[in-house]
Amino acid sequence: MNLRQLGEDRLLHELLPSLGRSGGVILPAGDDCAVVPSPRGKLLLLKTDCVVENVHFRKDTPPKAVGWKAMMRPLSDFAAMSGVPQFALVTLMIPGRTTREWVRKLYDGLRRAASRFDVTIVGGETSSTKDLLAISISVSGFVERTRWVSRRGGRRGDDLFVTGRLGGSLRRKHLSFVPRIDESRWLTKNFVVHAMMDLSDGLGADLPRLAAASGVGFELEYEKIPRTAGAGIKQAITDGEDYELLFATPKRERPRLLARWRARFPKVPLTQIGRLTVKSATNRQKLPGGYVHFK
Amino acid sequence: MNLRQLGEDRLLHELLPSLGRSGGVILPAGDDCAVVPSPRGKLLLLKTDCVVENVHFRKDTPPKAVGWKAMMRPLSDFAAMSGVPQFALVTLMIPGRTTREWVRKLYDGLRRAASRFDVTIVGGETSSTKDLLAISISVSGFVERTRWVSRRGGRRGDDLFVTGRLGGSLRRKHLSFVPRIDESRWLTKNFVVHAMMDLSDGLGADLPRLAAASGVGFELEYEKIPRTAGAGIKQAITDGEDYELLFATPKRERPRLLARWRARFPKVPLTQIGRLTVKSATNRQKLPGGYVHFK
Repeated sequence: MNLRQLGEDRLLHELLPSLGRSGGVILPAGDDCAVVPSPRGKLLLLKTDCVVENVHFRKDTPPKAVGWKAMMRPLSDFAAMSGVPQFALVTLMIPGRTTREWVRKLYDGLRRAASRFDVTIVGGETSSTKDLLAISISVSGFVERTRWVSRRGGRRGDDLFVTGRLGGSLRRKHLSFVPRIDESRWLTKNFVVHAMMDLSDGLGADLPRLAAASGVGFELEYEKIPRTAGAGIKQAITDGEDYELLFATPKRERPRLLARWRARFPKVPLTQIGRLTVKSATNRQKLPGGYVHFK
Repeated sequence: MNLRQLGEDRLLHELLPSLGRSGGVILPAGDDCAVVPSPRGKLLLLKTDCVVENVHFRKDTPPKAVGWKAMMRPLSDFAAMSGVPQFALVTLMIPGRTTREWVRKLYDGLRRAASRFDVTIVGGETSSTKDLLAISISVSGFVERTRWVSRRGGRRGDDLFVTGRLGGSLRRKHLSFVPRIDESRWLTKNFVVHAMMDLSDGLGADLPRLAAASGVGFELEYEKIPRTAGAGIKQAITDGEDYELLFATPKRERPRLLARWRARFPKVPLTQIGRLTVKSATNRQKLPGGYVHFK
């Protein structure tokens, strides 16, 4: 049965009750807005993102993996800010010919990803399209006033760290990655982090953004960049979709950070790959650019 | 110049600074998440929606009108809940061939619509597509714990009211409507409102939803339904995209409500079109259905 035969009401009827009503949700999916408690004394974080067929996934990508990726991408932005995601809204833009089974599996993936970080899906909206298949997810959550990190706070002399390994994500990882939320929350609880972001367009595109937002330059030690097995240095810099953290900390934190990280996250490499420097107009040209949309 | 030539960074660079930083926004568009103050002691409202080319607008629809509609649709859901919208995130899914001028005008419309209700656009995300053109907007805001209204609270014997006139919206109104936020806020400040929603799929599809959510039936007085000039009764029930309020109030409120409404909103008709009744399985079949996606 496809969606045209099923109708939107029945589709949402089938999908939404399964979403439950956890996390103190006051009015869940199915009404005009979701009603949820607002975080007390904390800052609100808002993020929206989308995945589009033939851009972020392919026609033959398993729908469960599509759902996983669609949800985890904005959650990775919460990691970048050291935030705690709480509630997600799902907008499906799907051709009427899509089967009910496909959408069910997509929601399976969405739900599984959300529950990995205790996120509740509080709303669903669908729109029929002629051909386009896209999923837009928006997420709200919170961060303590003393713990949020942006791209802007980097200072000259800061160490630059990267989690995990870079490059070659499109072979597999881009459909199954786990955003570095646990790592990011641990970092801001225990260390001074001046600036942070998640690597989505590749180190070559993203590092210059962090440096520019902080008003500083940077120096990379290319040979240090941790590479996924099989990825060359160029791939590690330009491939994109790593969803690893890039962050800047005062140099004095380095020994304690590396030691405690190894104890806390033994399976996740943490590598110092360079430092922030005085502003320089030439840095940008020297780096091979990562993946930038429209180019 | 089209977007492929311009690149995503430069596009966002052009669009985002113009969005300003009002409403106490702590970190505006351009970082990984938007950071905003969370509403104190109030409930958080979350809503996402989208407009898609060839479904909600046409290739030749002026981009400013597309932006207006894209923003106003989720704001209409805030009206339905008697909520106050505050922050919006914009996700553009656009073909690389789209011109910069088109996107600028789209943002003009988005901004104009947002500022009509003091909403700040705090984030923008773009994804290139092959052909699809869609805009997804998510909005957060708040409502006082004592004032939120869902579709669920309707009671047997309640009067059913509708604002404005129904039908024929696709001729013009669907691109230029103003969500009934002022009216809705005034209603919950001054009257008991048991259930409310905005009419987006047509009275014939939406009223049965309100009744079902409230666990009651309904009786419509067809001849009372206020119609747009030129719209017949069937159009008034089935056309969709009215973005008017449908709400249920205790019968005792009627005289005072009608008198005070006329004084406060002299240009907006308010019409009692029927009532909620004991639950009946036949109501749904009797009504010609409004517009339902996928059908």
